[in-house]
Amino acid sequence: MIVPGFQAAATAAGIKKNGGLDLALIVADTPCAAAGVFTRNRVKAAPVLLSRERLRRHRLQAVLINSGNANACTGAQGMTAAVEATRQAAQLLGLPENLVAPASTGVIGQPLPLERIIAALPDLVASLSPEGLGQVAQAIMTTDTRPKTAFIRETMFGVPVTMVGIAKGAGMIHPDMATLLAFVFTDAAVTGRVLKHLLKEAVNQTFNRITIDGDTSTNDTVLALASGKAGNPLIADPRLSALSLRDWLKDLLTDLARQVVADGEGAMRTYRILVQGAASPRQAQQAAAAIATSPLVKTAMNGADVNWGRIMAALGRSGANFQPERVDITFGPHQVVKNGQGLGIEAENAARQVILDGPFTLTVHLHAGNFSDYYDTCDLSQDYIRINASYRS
Amino acid sequence: MIVPGFQAAATAAGIKKNGGLDLALIVADTPCAAAGVFTRNRVKAAPVLLSRERLRRHRLQAVLINSGNANACTGAQGMTAAVEATRQAAQLLGLPENLVAPASTGVIGQPLPLERIIAALPDLVASLSPEGLGQVAQAIMTTDTRPKTAFIRETMFGVPVTMVGIAKGAGMIHPDMATLLAFVFTDAAVTGRVLKHLLKEAVNQTFNRITIDGDTSTNDTVLALASGKAGNPLIADPRLSALSLRDWLKDLLTDLARQVVADGEGAMRTYRILVQGAASPRQAQQAAAAIATSPLVKTAMNGADVNWGRIMAALGRSGANFQPERVDITFGPHQVVKNGQGLGIEAENAARQVILDGPFTLTVHLHAGNFSDYYDTCDLSQDYIRINASYRS
Repeated sequence: MIVPGFQAAATAAGIKKNGGLDLALIVADTPCAAAGVFTRNRVKAAPVLLSRERLRRHRLQAVLINSGNANACTGAQGMTAAVEATRQAAQLLGLPENLVAPASTGVIGQPLPLERIIAALPDLVASLSPEGLGQVAQAIMTTDTRPKTAFIRETMFGVPVTMVGIAKGAGMIHPDMATLLAFVFTDAAVTGRVLKHLLKEAVNQTFNRITIDGDTSTNDTVLALASGKAGNPLIADPRLSALSLRDWLKDLLTDLARQVVADGEGAMRTYRILVQGAASPRQAQQAAAAIATSPLVKTAMNGADVNWGRIMAALGRSGANFQPERVDITFGPHQVVKNGQGLGIEAENAARQVILDGPFTLTVHLHAGNFSDYYDTCDLSQDYIRINASYRS
Repeated sequence: MIVPGFQAAATAAGIKKNGGLDLALIVADTPCAAAGVFTRNRVKAAPVLLSRERLRRHRLQAVLINSGNANACTGAQGMTAAVEATRQAAQLLGLPENLVAPASTGVIGQPLPLERIIAALPDLVASLSPEGLGQVAQAIMTTDTRPKTAFIRETMFGVPVTMVGIAKGAGMIHPDMATLLAFVFTDAAVTGRVLKHLLKEAVNQTFNRITIDGDTSTNDTVLALASGKAGNPLIADPRLSALSLRDWLKDLLTDLARQVVADGEGAMRTYRILVQGAASPRQAQQAAAAIATSPLVKTAMNGADVNWGRIMAALGRSGANFQPERVDITFGPHQVVKNGQGLGIEAENAARQVILDGPFTLTVHLHAGNFSDYYDTCDLSQDYIRINASYRS
C-alpha cells in the first residue's frame, strides 16, 4: 500500500491508556494539492478549526493525527496545543507549519497531552517510510475493531495513478456518532479546487449516506492530498477531464464507508435502507434516515425480527408525505408488506432468513413520486450499550 | 380509586400470548363531555381514526381498550374490526355505538382477534363495577412493568371533584417509542370544548415533554371523559372558571408522565434535561431534545459516566444557536463545564454521585438568550435492547 511521493509512520505516544498506536504522521516529498471536508457540528474541535484554516490555499504537505483524545471543548489551550504539535512536526520535517494539518479523535473535553506528542515526534519522523500507511490505519482507531484501508491503481492519460484511503469510524453510524476520520493520498496531478469539488461530491455520496446529513460529531474530518507525482496532465477542470478521478474517489470512499458500517460498535448485521417512490429527494432522504436511525427498527434487526410495523411507524414520523395504504416493504427479494398491509407469516419467515443471511437491502416503496435515497446502517445490540456505557472508563 | 358516575372492568380475552389481562371497558352512567389528543404520526391505527371521528361532537359514554394488538396497518379489515368491537359493546351496554371510543396498543400489523373480543364482552359488561379502574390500569400494559394511575380529589365551588388518570407507556421515551395510552375520568361538570382545550394544554406540558413533539407512534391516544356528577357549575369558559381544573389535569398528567419515564424499558436511571439561556423557545426545545434522545448520552448515563463531551456534541448538532465557549453544564448542584470547558475530575466525581443517587436534573445553560425547555427521560441499557430485540417473539 504505497503511494508514490508519500511516507508515513505511527507510534505509541502514550495518549491512549492501553498503550496502543496513537500518533501518526504522513508526509509528502513536495507540497500537495489538498482539500478537506469537515463536521458541520457547531462544536468543532481545535484540529478541525486549524486544518480548515490551513486548507484555505488548497495546499498541504503533511498530516499529523492522534487518537485517544479529540482535543475538542478544550478552549484556547486546545488550539495552542494543536498549533504547537504541528509546529514541532513542521520544524522536524523542515516545512512551513501551515502545510501541516492536524486531526484528532477520541474523548472530548480532556487536554491534549502535548508533551507526550512532542516527545514522540523525533522518533516518528525518523521512522517515516513509504510502507508506513498501513500502520497509520491502526494508529487512528478508537473503538474500531479493525483498520480500514482501500487501494486503487488505475491508468489515466496513459500513466498509472495510485490512490489510498484510510478511515476510522466508531459509533453505530447514527446521527451523533459518526466519529469519522478519513484520509486520501494520491499521486494524481489535480488542482486543489478540483480536488475539493470531487471530494465533497464523493463524501456526499458515501460517508454522508452512512450518517445523517447535518448530524455530525465535533471532529469529523476527511482530507485528501494529491502529490502530482503520477505525471498525468494536471486536472484543472472538475468536468470532463476529472471523470476517472471522480469515479475512483467515489469507489475508494464507498469501500471505506462499507468497512465503517460493518465495524459499527456491537454490530451483528449490516443492511441498506432504500426508499423509493418518494415525492421529493428531501422526502426520500427523510424517510430513509428515519428508518435507518430508529432504535426500534435497529433492535428488531438485531433480533432478526421482521417487525415491519416499526418501519411503518418510523416512516409515519419521518416528515415524508405518503399514503400508508400504498406502502410496500421488501427484505432482499421477499416482499412482506403490500399496500400497507402484511403479507403473512410465510413472507416474514423468508424475510427473516434474509436478515440472518446478512448484508441485505430493506426496500420501502412509498408510491408517492419518483425519488429515491438510501442509508447503509447496522443493528443496535447489547454490545453497543456495553461499549458506550463504559467508553471513558 | 372510584370516580362517581363511572364503572369499569377488565378481562383476559386471549389477545396477549401470555394470557394476561388484555381487554378493558369503562362506562359512564350518562353521556360525558369528552375530548381526545391523538398521535400526529402519518400512520394512524384504526382505533385512533375511529375515536377521533367519534369525538367530533365532544361526547362519549364508554371506552373499550385492548392491549396485545395495536390494530394498526390492518387496512379496511382493521377499521371494520374496531367498528364491530365497539358496536357489540354498545349493544350490550344499550348505548349508541358512536358514544363508545376504542383504543388499542401492542404489535402493529396483525389482525385484531375480533372473535375473542366479542366472545369476552358479555362477561366484561357483567363484571362492570365502580372499583374496576385499577384492573383497567393492568389490562392496558404491554412492556410496562407496573400499572400507572393517579388520583386527585379536590373541592371546586364548594363541591368535591374527583379525577383519575390511567396510563401505559412502553419504550424508552424516545422519538418513535412513546407508545402511550392515557385516560382521564372525572366527575367535574365541564363542556367538551373546554375539556379539549385543557387536555391539549396539559398534554403539551407533560406527555409531550417526555417525548418529541411530532415524533409519535401509530396509536398514541389520550382521552378524557367528564361525567358532570360532581354538580359544580358547568365550566364553559377555558379561562378563569377553569383554573382549578387546568391545574389538576396538569398535576394528574405530570404524575402519570413521571411514572411512564420511571418505567422506561430497561431504564436504570431517570433524569431531566433542562436547557436554559436559549435564543428562542424553539431552540430551547431543540437543544433539550437532542440531548435527551442522544443514544451516546443515554448510554453514558447508564454507565454513570459524566461524559459531558457527548452532551456538547449533541448540542452542536441540535440546530440551536450558541457559542460553545459560553456553555455551562451542571449535574444536580455540581457544575462540570464552565464556558465550554471541563472543571476537572473532582467536579466530575461529584456529578457521578448525582447520577448514581438518581433522579437528577442535568442543566445546560447556553447563555444565548432567555428561553428554557426540558425533557424528562431515562438511560439506555442493555435490557432495552434485550426487550426490543425480542418483543414480538
